Amino acid sequence: MRYGHFDDEAREYVITTPHTPYPWINYLGSQEFFSLISHQAGGYSFYRDAKMRRLTRYRYNNVPADAGGRYFYIHDDGDVWTPSWMPVKADLEHFEARHGLGYSRMVGARGGLSVETLFFVPVGVNAEIQKVTLTNTSDAHKRVSLFSFVEFCLWNAQDDQTNYQRNLSIGEVEVEPESPTGTAIYHRTEYRERRNHYAVYGVNAVASGYDTDRDTFVGAYNGLGEAAVPRDGKAGNSLASGWYPIGSHQLDVDLAPGASQTYTFVLGYLENPRDEKWEPADEARGIKPLQVLNKTRAHELLAQFATTEQVDASFAELQAYWTRLLSTYSVTSTDAKLDRMVNVWNQYQCMVTFNMSRSASYFETGIGRGMGFRDSNQDLLGFVHLVPERARERIIDIASTQFADGSAYHQYQPLTKRGNNDIGSGFNDDPMWLVAGVAAYLKETGDWSILDEPVPFDNEPGTEVPLFEHLARSFDFTVDNRGPHGLPLIGRADWNDCLNLNCFSWEPGESFQTTENQAGGVAESVFIAAQFVLYGREFADIAERRGLDDVARHAREAVAAMEQAVLAHGWDGQWFLRAYDYYGTPIGTDADPEGKIWIEPQGFATMAGIGADVPTDAGVSRAELALDKVEEMLGTEHGNVLQFPAYTSYQVNLGEVSTYPPGYKENGGIFCHNNPWVIIGETVLGRGDKAFDLYRKITPAYREDISDVHRLEPYVYAQMIAGKEAVRHGEAKNSWLTGTAAWNFVAVSQHLLGVRPEHDGLVVAPCLGPDVPEFTVTRVARGATYTIRVQNSGVRGAQPRLTVDGTEIEGTTVPWAPAGSSVAVDVVL
Amino acid sequence: MRYGHFDDEAREYVITTPHTPYPWINYLGSQEFFSLISHQAGGYSFYRDAKMRRLTRYRYNNVPADAGGRYFYIHDDGDVWTPSWMPVKADLEHFEARHGLGYSRMVGARGGLSVETLFFVPVGVNAEIQKVTLTNTSDAHKRVSLFSFVEFCLWNAQDDQTNYQRNLSIGEVEVEPESPTGTAIYHRTEYRERRNHYAVYGVNAVASGYDTDRDTFVGAYNGLGEAAVPRDGKAGNSLASGWYPIGSHQLDVDLAPGASQTYTFVLGYLENPRDEKWEPADEARGIKPLQVLNKTRAHELLAQFATTEQVDASFAELQAYWTRLLSTYSVTSTDAKLDRMVNVWNQYQCMVTFNMSRSASYFETGIGRGMGFRDSNQDLLGFVHLVPERARERIIDIASTQFADGSAYHQYQPLTKRGNNDIGSGFNDDPMWLVAGVAAYLKETGDWSILDEPVPFDNEPGTEVPLFEHLARSFDFTVDNRGPHGLPLIGRADWNDCLNLNCFSWEPGESFQTTENQAGGVAESVFIAAQFVLYGREFADIAERRGLDDVARHAREAVAAMEQAVLAHGWDGQWFLRAYDYYGTPIGTDADPEGKIWIEPQGFATMAGIGADVPTDAGVSRAELALDKVEEMLGTEHGNVLQFPAYTSYQVNLGEVSTYPPGYKENGGIFCHNNPWVIIGETVLGRGDKAFDLYRKITPAYREDISDVHRLEPYVYAQMIAGKEAVRHGEAKNSWLTGTAAWNFVAVSQHLLGVRPEHDGLVVAPCLGPDVPEFTVTRVARGATYTIRVQNSGVRGAQPRLTVDGTEIEGTTVPWAPAGSSVAVDVVL
Repeated sequence: MRYGHFDDEAREYVITTPHTPYPWINYLGSQEFFSLISHQAGGYSFYRDAKMRRLTRYRYNNVPADAGGRYFYIHDDGDVWTPSWMPVKADLEHFEARHGLGYSRMVGARGGLSVETLFFVPVGVNAEIQKVTLTNTSDAHKRVSLFSFVEFCLWNAQDDQTNYQRNLSIGEVEVEPESPTGTAIYHRTEYRERRNHYAVYGVNAVASGYDTDRDTFVGAYNGLGEAAVPRDGKAGNSLASGWYPIGSHQLDVDLAPGASQTYTFVLGYLENPRDEKWEPADEARGIKPLQVLNKTRAHELLAQFATTEQVDASFAELQAYWTRLLSTYSVTSTDAKLDRMVNVWNQYQCMVTFNMSRSASYFETGIGRGMGFRDSNQDLLGFVHLVPERARERIIDIASTQFADGSAYHQYQPLTKRGNNDIGSGFNDDPMWLVAGVAAYLKETGDWSILDEPVPFDNEPGTEVPLFEHLARSFDFTVDNRGPHGLPLIGRADWNDCLNLNCFSWEPGESFQTTENQAGGVAESVFIAAQFVLYGREFADIAERRGLDDVARHAREAVAAMEQAVLAHGWDGQWFLRAYDYYGTPIGTDADPEGKIWIEPQGFATMAGIGADVPTDAGVSRAELALDKVEEMLGTEHGNVLQFPAYTSYQVNLGEVSTYPPGYKENGGIFCHNNPWVIIGETVLGRGDKAFDLYRKITPAYREDISDVHRLEPYVYAQMIAGKEAVRHGEAKNSWLTGTAAWNFVAVSQHLLGVRPEHDGLVVAPCLGPDVPEFTVTRVARGATYTIRVQNSGVRGAQPRLTVDGTEIEGTTVPWAPAGSSVAVDVVL
Repeated sequence: MRYGHFDDEAREYVITTPHTPYPWINYLGSQEFFSLISHQAGGYSFYRDAKMRRLTRYRYNNVPADAGGRYFYIHDDGDVWTPSWMPVKADLEHFEARHGLGYSRMVGARGGLSVETLFFVPVGVNAEIQKVTLTNTSDAHKRVSLFSFVEFCLWNAQDDQTNYQRNLSIGEVEVEPESPTGTAIYHRTEYRERRNHYAVYGVNAVASGYDTDRDTFVGAYNGLGEAAVPRDGKAGNSLASGWYPIGSHQLDVDLAPGASQTYTFVLGYLENPRDEKWEPADEARGIKPLQVLNKTRAHELLAQFATTEQVDASFAELQAYWTRLLSTYSVTSTDAKLDRMVNVWNQYQCMVTFNMSRSASYFETGIGRGMGFRDSNQDLLGFVHLVPERARERIIDIASTQFADGSAYHQYQPLTKRGNNDIGSGFNDDPMWLVAGVAAYLKETGDWSILDEPVPFDNEPGTEVPLFEHLARSFDFTVDNRGPHGLPLIGRADWNDCLNLNCFSWEPGESFQTTENQAGGVAESVFIAAQFVLYGREFADIAERRGLDDVARHAREAVAAMEQAVLAHGWDGQWFLRAYDYYGTPIGTDADPEGKIWIEPQGFATMAGIGADVPTDAGVSRAELALDKVEEMLGTEHGNVLQFPAYTSYQVNLGEVSTYPPGYKENGGIFCHNNPWVIIGETVLGRGDKAFDLYRKITPAYREDISDVHRLEPYVYAQMIAGKEAVRHGEAKNSWLTGTAAWNFVAVSQHLLGVRPEHDGLVVAPCLGPDVPEFTVTRVARGATYTIRVQNSGVRGAQPRLTVDGTEIEGTTVPWAPAGSSVAVDVVL
């Protein structure tokens, strides 16, 4: 069952009913001002930091779900409704919500009135624009009132929902009934003291009334759907003093039959220098010092959007921004779902993940997380081709939080860019992710100068060393922290944050990651070993190209030794082990009744080629056997579960992984983040058909038809789909902000479609089986444009033959062309 | 305007409309299990710790307000309503909510059906009992369905509202459609792992259906008022798996005309030892190990409330508990408002403050606070006569967090009883509050053995010294930490947490209390000086009675020196200064345009008698002049504001006090906590008429008639009433959990009515002006009962003449009588 459809031309997902199983959302904003918006206009806005600079209030896990957002109420001769359906929920004769790239559009119609709303954050502007058009579709003259509504958050989103002793006394607003461009409401709570910022909510017309006090607008004990002012059709002109400040304008609209009227609302964030905070005192006007907000900057902002022409131009600029961004990689194939994921939605999700740093979604409250060292490096794999200059900046930020011994803070704070002491260090896969991120950056850009950038340790001035040295420390840290089998020590956790082999916890609420009470130098991770083999080779390559032959040779020896350790001590007979626990006992072995086989080491080992040339009794290589077993034991129609069988009881020696009910999250859920590792692993083994099958199981566009089962957005990945042992198998959770987006884009663009940057050129080596017989990839890299036409037999083992600008070449690497040039590549396999 | 009335006989406040300006609440529970309940049945329950063991979910600052609680839906032939009005809000033909002592009762009637609900937590039981009686008041037979509803919190209330990535996957329940006593729902989220506790929600009848999944019961995008199952009249028998677990029973009820039916619901908290968590495996019944919760203890709990007789007996026991508790101090006078406050509501509030430690109210979310060192000592003044044995325990707990130098953690954690490192120390009034608390305990009980109790510093085993030594360290700390004028250094703050003289903050969100960036040994507090004079004398008295004459003499000298310092450097000419700031500049002086005069030093200095015998040019003593100025400059019809004029702009050298809009909170709000200091101060000066006038301005029962202005409960104190410079002058905020309750009880019981325990006996010295010409106080103290009949002229300066058991005595101290005896005291003044 579906609740809408893709509009590929417009690059929009069109939701045709308000009654989706869960609010389906979108993100507005591309630099510093961001909004979350659901198909029902729910959500909130913030400036840079979703915790510290929250403009509007949103209540998570509310009843009704998704109550709170930017709403427009219509009062039409006593009939009250909202074109976004929520919150009034009056039946609509027509409803449509379109989520596009950085904007959302909703149309609702009822009783001869159609209301179209467009929401976007312009490029380079710290404001959400809300363009509202009312059209009289009836035969009669209409006089209706339009009421806007936002509820202000008192800036610090955490404090806002906890500290009522203070907060209910501090709310302050100002209103300009007649601002230079219409009517403007100012939210200035705490501006009287230390805040030098305020919010404005303006409309480009003089309103007939306004409200800023929630109790006046909504009425005591009412829900937003029963708001008193829209019901009565008359604004209260209320001025909030403490309690709950809101912003609402009343606009009375006369519409002849067929006529339309457009208004633009602007919700903006502004800062004033400390010595320009206030209007100058003016006794004649009754203005005392420090009483009246200096609104100059707000007036300048509002003046930018005073006319519909200005708004439309700004919106066109936003669309051009996205067209430009997404032109780097695109495909045209016989599979429309593949095309829309690759060209639009997967890359879009990668950019949103970049912008949000996984901090704010409908599953992340925006108050909890720093930026992950591991997360950010992985996310970078998915956006480095889109915004390489910003990827460069992020790499430097990340590396600056590394410790001198090569270990790393697991998280750092986006505003200060300093490591998060609450979480600390000890996630032993962290260091090598830095190598992965830098290698991807080098391949994409060829910008080797980054390796010479001076980068400190733990942000300490004076400790700067060239970035390359950070990579070396990452490498050495892993080599220096190995356990009894020569495999890397796992520390607090590796990629699987919930596999906690050194924390034995019996206290509810205790952190499994930071309560490291059993650190013993025994527990080892086969996953980190495989990761080391993969990215250790990248490090050796980089060293070699930097002319450090000794370093490179030494690195290759360490990688070879690690590979041998995996083969000797990380193989269970039919698949790779997951780890050794605190007692030195293997995890992920057929000998155990639960958790016999885990996905992560199978994926990473095959990605790294470990065991690809080691035969087994089954007549296939170890790598092949491992992935066969993945399919057999972990496979479901919704993708591969993380491990099997799931744990049915708490295992104190394993930690959080065993706390989830079977089939959920890391305990046998389908983690969409690590499925692409298997997809890539299958391509390494040349089994493109299996790879593409798995891709299609977890990729949202292919799951659109089962939206009633999947429940979350069919245009973006979720972190997890409930596994085969779950009560609600196939149901997704935690959409949008997950490394899934980056890894799937790597899998589909670089390995299935097979177009990937390498140091010496653009490799073209498709591997996706026979279901996509023809496709064309357009890739812009290092300033040149490559048009790659592929005839794809999909036959296993077929080697691609490349013709570059009419000349057949050896191998699969198209040499880098000069910036500005165009290269035609024809591929047959 | 009123929204109900007092029922003095029943000791209840009766709310006769659901439409109070704000939810008016009550507390259930007296030991370990507590509930908050509004007049609309909103609120939540917890076991011991409102943060860590939250049973049910509640959303603060929600829209609609107060959505979430224990609800009973009626489905009557398609008509759906709730007898608590919320959440369905269907019109009721009759509504009444009665808040009593540890219980609340609501009656709603509609369409010929009356539903009475009684909520209470029995003494010694970890459960909320919900007794529901349906009565058919119509002439026709009725068949209706009753649906119960609670929403489970996933135990940790903070995590519950923030960590959705995890929480939406872990919810687990079990249902016993036919338990031994009816139908029982079990909430066992995280029980599979480290929690050894679970919740049960049972009813003493076999239900016709149940629900445990919120989306099934409520329906997507519905509010609680539109819940789908009650609307459809048919339970879904849903089993929650993740998302949002709830508990709901459906009971189908046949009622002949005039007939009634009663059900009892029990919401309980239970713990199982780790080795008894699970039912034994039983293959025949399909039970695997570690799958089925061991429900033995829940069954035992439910069996205690299986019949209405059991429930009624338990309720009677609760009522007897409160009657016993409140018999310690009571008054019968010509002023009914005075009587109901003294006899019932003020003492009840003191007990609730004791139980809650100010942690959970409709203004405190239950997740933020530890127990205050200062707070708990002050609160103790209000409950030591009610539960002296528990006061003793608390004193030891508090003193155990003191540091060896006499300073103290400002807060400590109720579960661990250890000091809170996040807040730390440096609130320089803290130490002397310990003396105040212990002195009150000694006077109430005569239990001098407490001074010999070994009590550690900072909870470090091995550091124990007798409690008396802690008092000495408190005293010495204050003496040893004085500034240039010989006045005590203020540290981070004194009683006024918002007067931050050593923290200059320009960063929004920075704590004014812990960001102590200007500590310079200059800023001094006149308030602490006066506090030291008052409680330093108590310390000297205690030392003397302990036979430590040198210590006592030394202490009296230090007190005298402090008094001289106040007179020399703490007097502004017409009133007492408030403090000296970081630069040594006086605060609270007529020379300043704002913050000229502050209430705290005027109150405490006159309480301590400072300046009572120092004449002024005005012809009155300094103390009298100070309180005259308080009345003139701080007085309003709603009580005295904290300082005047309020600050209109941020003063970085004063801190948080200047961040509030004028008239709110510490910036010129009417702080009900420090008004009693002035009341007591007036009685010290013999001006009982002024004292009683002020008492009546802030005391809720006297404000009942302006409930539309006051807005909060008319039966308990609020922390603050908006001051004369506020936009909403007279409006109260932060009701229930405030030191206001304790201080007003001290003021009215010990100083206005004038019956107070001293070391040598019960002092009887009324001082309340002429408006209460006759009253009788019954006081139980040290096991004896004193019946004190007062003829009160109210004439200023009149000295009470006491006749004890028929014999006139000298002075005002009735010597302590043996336990078990009765003493008749007749007083004429």
